[in-house]
Amino acid sequence: MGTFATIDEARTYFKGDRFATTNGMIIDELSDGKAVCSMTIRDNHRNAHGGVMGGAIFTLADFAFAVASNNDRANTTGLHSAIEYLSGAKGTRLIAEAVCVKSGRTTSVYEVTVTDDTGRKIALFIGTGFTV
Amino acid sequence: MGTFATIDEARTYFKGDRFATTNGMIIDELSDGKAVCSMTIRDNHRNAHGGVMGGAIFTLADFAFAVASNNDRANTTGLHSAIEYLSGAKGTRLIAEAVCVKSGRTTSVYEVTVTDDTGRKIALFIGTGFTV
Amino acid sequence: MGTFATIDEARTYFKGDRFATTNGMIIDELSDGKAVCSMTIRDNHRNAHGGVMGGAIFTLADFAFAVASNNDRANTTGLHSAIEYLSGAKGTRLIAEAVCVKSGRTTSVYEVTVTDDTGRKIALFIGTGFTV
Amino acid sequence: MGTFATIDEARTYFKGDRFATTNGMIIDELSDGKAVCSMTIRDNHRNAHGGVMGGAIFTLADFAFAVASNNDRANTTGLHSAIEYLSGAKGTRLIAEAVCVKSGRTTSVYEVTVTDDTGRKIALFIGTGFTV
Repeated sequence: MGTFATIDEARTYFKGDRFATTNGMIIDELSDGKAVCSMTIRDNHRNAHGGVMGGAIFTLADFAFAVASNNDRANTTGLHSAIEYLSGAKGTRLIAEAVCVKSGRTTSVYEVTVTDDTGRKIALFIGTGFTV
Repeated sequence: MGTFATIDEARTYFKGDRFATTNGMIIDELSDGKAVCSMTIRDNHRNAHGGVMGGAIFTLADFAFAVASNNDRANTTGLHSAIEYLSGAKGTRLIAEAVCVKSGRTTSVYEVTVTDDTGRKIALFIGTGFTV
Repeated sequence: MGTFATIDEARTYFKGDRFATTNGMIIDELSDGKAVCSMTIRDNHRNAHGGVMGGAIFTLADFAFAVASNNDRANTTGLHSAIEYLSGAKGTRLIAEAVCVKSGRTTSVYEVTVTDDTGRKIALFIGTGFTV
Repeated sequence: MGTFATIDEARTYFKGDRFATTNGMIIDELSDGKAVCSMTIRDNHRNAHGGVMGGAIFTLADFAFAVASNNDRANTTGLHSAIEYLSGAKGTRLIAEAVCVKSGRTTSVYEVTVTDDTGRKIALFIGTGFTV
């Protein structure tokens, strides 16, 4: 498949991604150039206005980016990311789908779309990775 | 001072920002057009490569942006953010300083610099807010 | 169709976009939530390394964003943009396709893909607009 | 000084940056980690709303980024850029000041502030470069 032979191998490796996993984020799908991660929205994801905090949405997108990009090329770290917030989450889950836009020897670009479980688009994230 | 009469009033309000506070982020300073937030780096901030996860660095910067921008204008939410990762964190704490670049009636822009406690620049964050 | 009844009406209006038009950029397609603009690569688009300058690629993408967003909602101006350069242009033309991601009352988001006429992906642009 | 021994050497080299120079952009200052470029606002920089087009502001910032980053490290090309538009230009000139935030072996980050000659902040640009 890539760096990881199976999705369970990726899940074991990314248990080490403590910030994502202790905040309830899991890996749902993984294939060449693509990863889907999700989380159930809990009180600890909220901001002071009652919505899901930008940092929580970003972290889920960043996790999907890390999983997809490290499966495509081991030892890829983030260089830059941009996020556009599109609308407030209404549902009970957030789902982030990372898709490879470019995978070069040293730099790669992924686009991550975050939706809630009602199908609403919540955020658009672009991440640039650097492979050591 | 702004929306909040004292830093303690801001701290009480931002207790509602559960994603930041349950992940160990606190408000250190607050004044017109400026906020400083920080966190002690703990195991639960790590990524699978052993560094501080991009999502944790982003969340700290986003928290400083939220505190500064909501003090300057109540009910400001994020519209867009971009983050550049500059180097890996070496110290024991991360400090995010948000400074107002523009504060318009409906849109505002803040720049947030994240350093560690050895003085190393870790990340540069730009956030655009929208005041409802 | 939107603000403009026909593509020729849009072309007449955007003659006023002197920076784009004097640099050889034209409108090829326009419909709800979508615009395609292009330019023939000429010597005056080059940078000092001999490639197409980032500013020229950005300007073409920004033009497609302006055409699409102002057709969807009149009097939209740019608030923020981000561009990722994916590969150097090989062909003789650059084509920018802007697609609406979100069109709200005051803010909108468009994604613009720039390709050359060999089908190579050259750049990915995200633009946030503000409707006055 | 860097790649270029004098500012005139840099000016000669960047004559090859045809998109910037044919659109009236010039190099005013150059030193380690810093470049200042400017242009007189002319009709051909305008957009359809009568303001200076985003593409023209971006191109000036991108030019200052290219000059500073290539002086610091030869053969640096843009990987990613983000621009925030802060206010409309009122004066007769635009001035872009690029300052190095990070200069690594392969990647570098510059911040560029664009002001007009009345001192108004027009845009904030962040560029990531890749040194081949």
